[in-house]
Amino acid sequence: MSLEKFFSPSSIAVIGASREPGKLGNVILENIKYSFKERIYPINPYTTEILGLKTYSSVLEIEEPIDLAIIVVPAEIVENVVKECIKKKIKAAVIISSGFSEIGEKERELAIKKLCKSKKIRIIGPNCIGVYKKGLDMLFFPKNRIKRPPEGSISFLTQSGAFGSILLDILAHNGVGVSKFISFGNKVDVDEIDLFKYLEDDLTTRCIAFYLESVTDGKEFIKAAKNVTKKKPVVVFKAGKTKEGTEAVASHTGSMAGSAEVYSAAFKQAGIIEAKDSEELFDFAKALAKQPVLKDNKIAIVTDGGGFGIAATDAAIECGLELPPLSTESVKALKKFLPPYAITNNPIDLTGDADAERYEKALKIVLNDKNISGVVCIALLQIPTLDDEIIDVLRDSKMFGKPITVCSAGGNYVLERNKRLEKVGIPVFPSPERAVKAMLVLYEYGNILKRKN
Amino acid sequence: MSLEKFFSPSSIAVIGASREPGKLGNVILENIKYSFKERIYPINPYTTEILGLKTYSSVLEIEEPIDLAIIVVPAEIVENVVKECIKKKIKAAVIISSGFSEIGEKERELAIKKLCKSKKIRIIGPNCIGVYKKGLDMLFFPKNRIKRPPEGSISFLTQSGAFGSILLDILAHNGVGVSKFISFGNKVDVDEIDLFKYLEDDLTTRCIAFYLESVTDGKEFIKAAKNVTKKKPVVVFKAGKTKEGTEAVASHTGSMAGSAEVYSAAFKQAGIIEAKDSEELFDFAKALAKQPVLKDNKIAIVTDGGGFGIAATDAAIECGLELPPLSTESVKALKKFLPPYAITNNPIDLTGDADAERYEKALKIVLNDKNISGVVCIALLQIPTLDDEIIDVLRDSKMFGKPITVCSAGGNYVLERNKRLEKVGIPVFPSPERAVKAMLVLYEYGNILKRKN
Repeated sequence: MSLEKFFSPSSIAVIGASREPGKLGNVILENIKYSFKERIYPINPYTTEILGLKTYSSVLEIEEPIDLAIIVVPAEIVENVVKECIKKKIKAAVIISSGFSEIGEKERELAIKKLCKSKKIRIIGPNCIGVYKKGLDMLFFPKNRIKRPPEGSISFLTQSGAFGSILLDILAHNGVGVSKFISFGNKVDVDEIDLFKYLEDDLTTRCIAFYLESVTDGKEFIKAAKNVTKKKPVVVFKAGKTKEGTEAVASHTGSMAGSAEVYSAAFKQAGIIEAKDSEELFDFAKALAKQPVLKDNKIAIVTDGGGFGIAATDAAIECGLELPPLSTESVKALKKFLPPYAITNNPIDLTGDADAERYEKALKIVLNDKNISGVVCIALLQIPTLDDEIIDVLRDSKMFGKPITVCSAGGNYVLERNKRLEKVGIPVFPSPERAVKAMLVLYEYGNILKRKN
Repeated sequence: MSLEKFFSPSSIAVIGASREPGKLGNVILENIKYSFKERIYPINPYTTEILGLKTYSSVLEIEEPIDLAIIVVPAEIVENVVKECIKKKIKAAVIISSGFSEIGEKERELAIKKLCKSKKIRIIGPNCIGVYKKGLDMLFFPKNRIKRPPEGSISFLTQSGAFGSILLDILAHNGVGVSKFISFGNKVDVDEIDLFKYLEDDLTTRCIAFYLESVTDGKEFIKAAKNVTKKKPVVVFKAGKTKEGTEAVASHTGSMAGSAEVYSAAFKQAGIIEAKDSEELFDFAKALAKQPVLKDNKIAIVTDGGGFGIAATDAAIECGLELPPLSTESVKALKKFLPPYAITNNPIDLTGDADAERYEKALKIVLNDKNISGVVCIALLQIPTLDDEIIDVLRDSKMFGKPITVCSAGGNYVLERNKRLEKVGIPVFPSPERAVKAMLVLYEYGNILKRKN
């Protein structure tokens, strides 16, 4: 059964909607009301109206069809609520409620699992924060605490709700766009394999980022992942790698984490890119969603700060990228307009008085150079000679068809501009090392695409 | 000759002060005027007044004594200007001007070096951005581009001006305080050894952070560093580690970078903590400046987000920290007030509905537990049950005398609160892995202090 109703429902029931401000059932209803522009049915047998919406005592009381149920009732009565949903012919339900296998209540979870076997309903959760996309916001966090990211091309899967919501907040803060966000918690039914299959053909998803604690079925996982990674990149951050971390996983989402080596090998086989920490997950997804692959390992570094250029050079060489010399013509062309103290060797140092025009001319030469397949561009925007034209220059550098990652770090003045860069499709990183690693990942995904099977 | 005049001058001459807004000599004078509350003498032979200050055509024209000269004239005339400073008996000069060995003008640099041999003047620079501390701001970056950090306990040495200024901006943005910032560029005279000796006894410096490209005298460096690191921690980020990076160093500050292995061995011998990338430099300095050492490798992780707790656990185990179980009494005490779904094993999961009181009680128990020597505390401040009381709770956790590092990540709501945590002496990190690494460094410095020689 398709997952479409989770993402494009025409009507939603919020079962367990609450009148009490701050309660999950209240915040969820408020966010649904604010984001979702079609029919909404709050279910609460003890009142007649919440947030200006008429309430019902049960989904069975509603005459019109319902596409999606969001369930936020106490764990003990979830089973009955799901039975009612099946009776009402609801095809998709998200169980937000916790209190299942993560606290040892395995029987309770099994009962829900059984209901799914009927193939009459698909379920996301329990113990999750559900789905977020533009026009469908069921998060139980108020918007003043967790900002929502703009529409974009990363789809994000997570077994941890908190991890996912923090990442949403970070993405929003950095102006990085999201297509679909899916927190699936204890995955009683819908799991990563279903979601891989769904996102494989989802036109608005260019990259899948995944916070993973445990895989349900290793073989199926690799098979599904292999299919996706032929079409779009998948980045995974695996939590629970050590014995101690694995034990913590068991008490978090009630699942078994398994050995780190086995997972890494499976990722490799499936063409999945592994993020070593939570920041890499964010960095890699951003680069892969926005930039073309790097076709070989030959890059140039262009900088306006010598120290940052050196740090980027070290990082590039250490991870196996190469900095070949530019062609003789390129060097000649650079020398023609650069001041004598600028450096035309690779790394190319435009020096601390570079303006946007110097970047524009230099990037054009470097990105047209046949020796160079991609550019890590360090632009320290604080430097007084750099005005906002640099944003257009970097944006337009995309037209050369070679990947570019940008390092730009600092306070509010810079962060405001970084956000604008992200909006025009330029991935920005707060350190030279992270900009380089993102470039490396574009190379790695290029290699994955070249694989025969 | 002491370096005191660089940091506490009673009068300053700005040689090469400019009337033209945006010019270095203008921005520097403006920032000096704004920050420095004693006598200021702008030197410019072509005008009579700049920014409301009377100008002079040479330092020799001034009758009162001058403590510090800031030189920002073209490289060709720097030598003559320094000669005039010596004649005027100025004991300290900062040469901001570039155009020396970094562009191959070695003779020009040698001439300045010779003048220092007379022991009549001490010189910082050339090709640098000089000194910054509260009350003495000679940076040539306007404040709307680069924010100035508050007064604090990190002193920062840098061979790269741009690297240093970006770090200042980042420190300011995060509310992390600085005692002294010294960019010394080509170090014709004052070098890292002089500055180590000076900062060793500087009461307001609790930690030294150092962006290093090359050391002038290896043996002396180790000797001076050994003395400092017995009293306060030193963190170094070495740029120019690869062959390619080393070559880039040569064209940046005109110095020889040398082999990475030799440097790492020297750092180890000297008790210096090495940062592997630019973010580690910032992270480690912050932790070391604000927190006591970790006496053994036994820590606890306290979290309100399961996923972040697992990521922190993996990171801790992977880097050799241990997560021992709490004592039976501690577990009993925790169970007494925690909800049944909370986890009292280490990592301790207070779960996503934790409030400040739950943190307060839990931290008190954990920090009093004799099995535990430090805490990595994950506080996802977005969670609606956490109000601003958590800031006081974390601040007060310092009174147990054990180190604490905090992971808190997100958008503006969170960043605003992180800044307040930094101000009360709690180092905050944007990922669980970085909070753990910072804790590891507190353990490493503890081991350095235990060394016999």
